[in-house]
Amino acid sequence: MDELVERFLAGDRRALARIISRVESESGEGRECLRQLYPHSGKAHIIGITGGAGAGKSTLTGALAAEYRRRGKTLGIVAVDPSSPFTHGAILGDRIRMQELTLDPGVYMRSMAGRGALGGLAPTIDDVVAVMDAFGFDYVIIETVGAGQDEVEIAGLALTTILVNNPGTGDDIQALKAGIIEIADILVVNKADHPGADVLVSQLQALLSLAPAGARRPPILKTTALKAEGLAELADAIGEHGAYLAQSGELERRRADDARQQVLSIARQILLERIRAATSEEELAELVLRVAARKLDPHSAAEQLAGNVLR
Amino acid sequence: MDELVERFLAGDRRALARIISRVESESGEGRECLRQLYPHSGKAHIIGITGGAGAGKSTLTGALAAEYRRRGKTLGIVAVDPSSPFTHGAILGDRIRMQELTLDPGVYMRSMAGRGALGGLAPTIDDVVAVMDAFGFDYVIIETVGAGQDEVEIAGLALTTILVNNPGTGDDIQALKAGIIEIADILVVNKADHPGADVLVSQLQALLSLAPAGARRPPILKTTALKAEGLAELADAIGEHGAYLAQSGELERRRADDARQQVLSIARQILLERIRAATSEEELAELVLRVAARKLDPHSAAEQLAGNVLR
Repeated sequence: MDELVERFLAGDRRALARIISRVESESGEGRECLRQLYPHSGKAHIIGITGGAGAGKSTLTGALAAEYRRRGKTLGIVAVDPSSPFTHGAILGDRIRMQELTLDPGVYMRSMAGRGALGGLAPTIDDVVAVMDAFGFDYVIIETVGAGQDEVEIAGLALTTILVNNPGTGDDIQALKAGIIEIADILVVNKADHPGADVLVSQLQALLSLAPAGARRPPILKTTALKAEGLAELADAIGEHGAYLAQSGELERRRADDARQQVLSIARQILLERIRAATSEEELAELVLRVAARKLDPHSAAEQLAGNVLR
Repeated sequence: MDELVERFLAGDRRALARIISRVESESGEGRECLRQLYPHSGKAHIIGITGGAGAGKSTLTGALAAEYRRRGKTLGIVAVDPSSPFTHGAILGDRIRMQELTLDPGVYMRSMAGRGALGGLAPTIDDVVAVMDAFGFDYVIIETVGAGQDEVEIAGLALTTILVNNPGTGDDIQALKAGIIEIADILVVNKADHPGADVLVSQLQALLSLAPAGARRPPILKTTALKAEGLAELADAIGEHGAYLAQSGELERRRADDARQQVLSIARQILLERIRAATSEEELAELVLRVAARKLDPHSAAEQLAGNVLR
């Protein structure tokens, strides 16, 4: 076994940081580390926190982390939100809390770039989460900005997805498209001290009442993350959701579904890389030119590319 | 050559409808039709119309179509918006205008399902647009609801992308994320008779002034689609954008970029289908189970699947 992985398994945080960097660079070295440490993963409770800009996701993440630390739990945090105070832009109170967390040996934070202005998680986020999981953290929290694509992807990655809602933006409910609410395991109305909070809770309840009978109805919780209020209840609700997943058999189903999606997605990526390697830039450029000039249709061009690597 | 394609090229609208259905079903027959008619495509000006719910996209599409008919031009319309009045939900005035268009032999309309509640165009939309293009329409208009993913995809498909904005929703500018505005070739403030229209125009101008120097700045036009006002100016602006693309060399670059993306995307799809065909459901299920149980890492599992089809 790799010496770096040995140090990682012994709890060396510098080894953790180096392995994450390797995995993020999508190097062969990173994949080898991942292969060796993967059997140690699968124990952490992965929590996704998502919601619109300004909903207070980062503050909530920090406050939830502090709550878990009070309970003696360890955690990894991955912030994909580009405006996350983990990287910059925090208000002072947040920044102090974040600094406390940064100095805490029971917490490991990492920020990751998203796929660009229009959303989508980094392709290596599954691997980064698996590394943190294997390191032995009790919880891994992924905080991501609520663009549509991110929210779908986070639900495929997290066991418990928390959708943070913000009263007083005036268009709260409008923004909750039917599809978005379906991926949420827990709904949080943050800034519960805001006068519009109770209205928002009622609106969410009304929206949930439209869900098909028999479907699990996500609980709606109120928090005021800035004052650390409602966090014990949120941590309890996350625990209850985890227990529900395990008892209902849903956990096993989800793990299998997620594994299937992930394996097929990586396989597709591998094949695409092979096509790129097997096709010279001239061949590709010439094919593309013929398609652009309408001399060849794109399906026939794609068949030719695929033919370069397929049996 | 296929007899259906012959009838299609002779201008038979029933042949057009049948070929679109074949292409949408992703059948081998559909691909063969596409192969034969593809050389006849590439002449239509493809226009994408996108924007938030309630911005008046459908009314604008109908009014723009009527303007082109007055100019003696023919057009195909693809409505991806699930709430489009082309399918249902139109107010009366719209519905009458739509019916007129439906009876017009110079217009062909088709509605397509999107990829689901969370956005994304149907995977076959490129092919459907190519078929309409090859049929000989002067313009093909794609109308899509403004979810983030749709908007990125429509910009890769349309030569001219029109972002429709709606005054008076209170959160107009907030909704215009930096990335979204970058894909717009023309900005339209619809419902120009609304008191907030001029404020919205100023806000958009301020937003555009932040664009990097040297970049083409999209024009901002005011329309009142319900009263058919501002449509001649919009049609002129679309024509000017088309001329700009051709003169600047941007047209050729875009066509090549789009062809490259499309070919690689289809190639990836072909490879995934081959993997599915070459891998028994038992083998896949067993691999997935081992990954879910953390006995095998997903990269190694994916390598095994890829190995089933690679040379």
